[in-house]
Amino acid sequence: MEVFPIGIIHSPFKVLEDMPIQPTGAAGISGTVEVDASFCEGLKDLDGFSHIILLYQFHRSQGYALQVIPFMDTTSRGLFATRAPKRPNPIGLSIVELERVDGNCLHISNVDILDGTPLLDIKPYVPQFDIHQVTRSGWLDRSENNVTTHKSDSRFT
Amino acid sequence: MEVFPIGIIHSPFKVLEDMPIQPTGAAGISGTVEVDASFCEGLKDLDGFSHIILLYQFHRSQGYALQVIPFMDTTSRGLFATRAPKRPNPIGLSIVELERVDGNCLHISNVDILDGTPLLDIKPYVPQFDIHQVTRSGWLDRSENNVTTHKSDSRFT
Repeated sequence: MEVFPIGIIHSPFKVLEDMPIQPTGAAGISGTVEVDASFCEGLKDLDGFSHIILLYQFHRSQGYALQVIPFMDTTSRGLFATRAPKRPNPIGLSIVELERVDGNCLHISNVDILDGTPLLDIKPYVPQFDIHQVTRSGWLDRSENNVTTHKSDSRFT
Repeated sequence: MEVFPIGIIHSPFKVLEDMPIQPTGAAGISGTVEVDASFCEGLKDLDGFSHIILLYQFHRSQGYALQVIPFMDTTSRGLFATRAPKRPNPIGLSIVELERVDGNCLHISNVDILDGTPLLDIKPYVPQFDIHQVTRSGWLDRSENNVTTHKSDSRFT
């Protein structure tokens, strides 16, 4: 299947190094999503949601390995047990806060996305669909406390 | 960007009609994800997570409209304020419970996905990244209580 950009995500992050590795580590960082004008009609009602799911292309990531050492760990992990950007299908997922909608421009915060990233889809974040009580969170059980301070480096460029 | 199946999702749902419309409405429904053997190494460590995010192709949905009447509503809504399957990039997202991993086969429950759906990506569901306190959930604020009983129909075929 061919997927194509429906817009562009803008953020303060111009290079992959030193980015927050998840929105949780990007509190207060603002950005915008510039949706192609031809899709503007599809944004109706979106302003009713405080959080949205962005799917986008990890456009700077080439290739992949099936085991990686995640930013928050020192041990090699199976790729699909990580959120690393170099994947067979390099599709990124971030849940960001939607501040306001201005025409075809979404003002968002808690942005952990590289400036210029091609947007693939927008979905509303719905607690009843998207909040789940987990009983296990794997290797992150002991390392997730660091997500707010961990930054990316060049390993996934 | 070209994306390609890395596996196939199997479920009891052979036709689009009468499916649950979200995993919340599919409690107890079991399925499997058959990951292509060539990606098996990437599944290491995944069994540590109780919930996983599946990205997949809405392979039975052709075309899209920028306004739709969602299953849970009677009013036309902007497409991107809904989870409707007919989208410019028809990528689906479901958070399912991971029961166990058996080689390249994932046994999952709370499955709201059509049998034979092409899998695009697997990501671990991580509370610190994926659970957010929302203040608004738009048109769903008044209708989300119905998700456990609502079923799909043919409108998005």
